[in-house]
Amino acid sequence: MVEKLLRNHASVRKYKDYTLSREEVSELIETAQHAASSHFVQAYSVIWVTDDKKKEELGRLSSNQKQFETAGAAFLLCADFHRLQAAGKMQDTDIMMDTTENVLVGTVDVALFAQNLVIAAESKGYGICYIGGVRNEPAEISRLFDLPEGVFPLFALTLGIPDQQNDVKPRLPVAAVLHENEYDSSKYEGLLKEYDQTMEDYYVGRGSNQKVANWTKSMADFLKTPRRSHMAEFLSSKGFHLK
Amino acid sequence: MVEKLLRNHASVRKYKDYTLSREEVSELIETAQHAASSHFVQAYSVIWVTDDKKKEELGRLSSNQKQFETAGAAFLLCADFHRLQAAGKMQDTDIMMDTTENVLVGTVDVALFAQNLVIAAESKGYGICYIGGVRNEPAEISRLFDLPEGVFPLFALTLGIPDQQNDVKPRLPVAAVLHENEYDSSKYEGLLKEYDQTMEDYYVGRGSNQKVANWTKSMADFLKTPRRSHMAEFLSSKGFHLK
Repeated sequence: MVEKLLRNHASVRKYKDYTLSREEVSELIETAQHAASSHFVQAYSVIWVTDDKKKEELGRLSSNQKQFETAGAAFLLCADFHRLQAAGKMQDTDIMMDTTENVLVGTVDVALFAQNLVIAAESKGYGICYIGGVRNEPAEISRLFDLPEGVFPLFALTLGIPDQQNDVKPRLPVAAVLHENEYDSSKYEGLLKEYDQTMEDYYVGRGSNQKVANWTKSMADFLKTPRRSHMAEFLSSKGFHLK
Repeated sequence: MVEKLLRNHASVRKYKDYTLSREEVSELIETAQHAASSHFVQAYSVIWVTDDKKKEELGRLSSNQKQFETAGAAFLLCADFHRLQAAGKMQDTDIMMDTTENVLVGTVDVALFAQNLVIAAESKGYGICYIGGVRNEPAEISRLFDLPEGVFPLFALTLGIPDQQNDVKPRLPVAAVLHENEYDSSKYEGLLKEYDQTMEDYYVGRGSNQKVANWTKSMADFLKTPRRSHMAEFLSSKGFHLK
């Protein structure tokens, strides 16, 4: 049942010794491509990292070296307007990619594609992990994979046969993310207190890595300092000027 | 089979007369929430639009009035750092959301959540349509639903029992989106010519709305003028300064 599959998702960061074949990878990509795409621009590219040295380097640059070591496949997911530039050239047309709008279009396109890939993979028994850490060093990673103008790395994905599986973390109460007809922030304090208690109970009781923590405290700690302040400048170097 | 479900996706813009119940909506949202989220920030909110006047207005503002008229449920999907600000306040902490990075984090979080929602809905026989048109008038839409600082609308989703179903459009060849170890643009001209032929054949032969068109021409026409150039200024009005 699809709903059960979706509700069972938890990141996997350690995999059994198994490498996905070219055929399997190709099939997963083709399935993932059936996600919706804004005006059918299909503004994404995948770098499948099979070279051991590059895999190690990508792991190091994204602060996730360990999981790349055991992954059955490692992908760098990129927003891509370079291919659209190529399409434009074939029609003697300069395309306009230089807008915040197109950064959003590319980002959504990548994410819908990736989530399809993830679900296809999980339906076959693989585990996965999204790695936003590639945005720690986007310029170096771009050089490592020769990413041209119009292409920026958004996240990586590792996948493989799970060797260790995390527990499924309780999500925010539905009422905290679902509003009806108007945004209602008056409910947050009550709901987040309730959720903090849920998360405290979860962190104390889970199978491994127990800790005393709750959600609002984790979020406050995580977001009290600005993160990855280089992103606007990096995107500009790739031809996306966010004006 | 999950792969078959994913590969059968096509937008649905006309629905049969059926309104989703509160229970069904709640179940779909809860399933969707199990998507991955960057550092578990869960930076999304959904406005479920049940008010007929607001639904009509959202349709008009996003240039998609017709499908809102028949949809069994209509959702506005938003990136949300406002709830994280509320979490910060509960911990006497100011959170830093003012970065391009957080626009990407929120956008990815919304998209992964939405794609889970879409797949859960499609697995139950519903059809869906993503509507990026909400970014035509993001400021007016924000006023319509009282979206506070830290929240921006990314797209809408309509869903319901399909009354008309589009054919599944052929996607780019796998080789055009999959690179190995380094980005390779030398292959585009050949692959895109091949794909143009595939799309020409598809558009001429499909069940309805036949036309003479190909992909590179559609893309060149679509992207030759800048689109939604107001997005950076709009995001800034919501507290995201893309510097």
